Amino acid sequence: MNEDIFGFGNFEFKMTRLIGIDPGLRNTGWGIIEVDGNRLSHIADGVVHSNSGDPLAHRLCQLYDGLTEIIESFKPAEAAVEETFVNANPASALKLGQARGIALLAPARSGLLVAEYSPNVVKKSVVGAGHAAKGQVQMMVRVLLPGCLSGASASADAADALAVAICHAHHRTAPRLANMAVGA
Amino acid sequence: MNEDIFGFGNFEFKMTRLIGIDPGLRNTGWGIIEVDGNRLSHIADGVVHSNSGDPLAHRLCQLYDGLTEIIESFKPAEAAVEETFVNANPASALKLGQARGIALLAPARSGLLVAEYSPNVVKKSVVGAGHAAKGQVQMMVRVLLPGCLSGASASADAADALAVAICHAHHRTAPRLANMAVGA
Repeated sequence: MNEDIFGFGNFEFKMTRLIGIDPGLRNTGWGIIEVDGNRLSHIADGVVHSNSGDPLAHRLCQLYDGLTEIIESFKPAEAAVEETFVNANPASALKLGQARGIALLAPARSGLLVAEYSPNVVKKSVVGAGHAAKGQVQMMVRVLLPGCLSGASASADAADALAVAICHAHHRTAPRLANMAVGA
Repeated sequence: MNEDIFGFGNFEFKMTRLIGIDPGLRNTGWGIIEVDGNRLSHIADGVVHSNSGDPLAHRLCQLYDGLTEIIESFKPAEAAVEETFVNANPASALKLGQARGIALLAPARSGLLVAEYSPNVVKKSVVGAGHAAKGQVQMMVRVLLPGCLSGASASADAADALAVAICHAHHRTAPRLANMAVGA
């Protein structure tokens, strides 16, 4: 919606833009929010796709270039990446890991601080319970960030990315951030 | 009879430099070889380390920057990456996947063709058997590439990277390369 752009230097110091990223090889969700004290506002969200017919190295380039372009456009100061759910299949964990490596690399190479949060910490931040259903997370994201996930860009991946951005907004000043950012 | 230096474009077209990469989060091995018809020669090898005390996103940057620097220095035309062994533990598969994503991205973003080979295909190319022991691979790499793995840089990761480069030298003109490059 209406971003208050340019000119109010003093106010801008308090405001911070965050990008949340929900990594996936086919679809990597992203969401940009602005934090001003306790107030959160929605800036943009969407999904970076990779073409499943292309060689893996090309697909990783598509994700990297897409995320880097978004970071350059919206200039967030910090990034938060959801820890990929590690399921029972090591082969798909490997594939997800490859996409996740890119989701961590792109903001770090753009000079952003990168924090990591487990899915349960994200759900707890947004819904208040660590084992909330997917639909509950998306509903609360819409309540907390009016105007988000509108139109064609509405997707579960973008909602998850906004959720991890909200989670980071709640945790970023807490002392445990230092530990969370150590990751892996 | 050494008149084929500089200027004889026809001869130069036959020589190709390849980089082999054996990805790992802590140690990513790399090896550069030159292929001239059936003749292989060793150019350089080594390991890119990431600092295990650093946040994960920083470690991935260290791997990316290290690999990109090597590619810029030695200017290989093609890259080959070993498929990471997927063991029974999804959490470590995820971690390896993150490093592997970087090992695929760095050469692709430098404009190199990136092929992928499974460990068994690599072993078969170098030793002649798909289930050769690690030591046999390293021994054969030393036989095939005199002068490699010398001094301080000698490591199992660099040997594995040279092995995947040798494997690519054998397979790169075969029609099945197209399939192998599709990967994952």
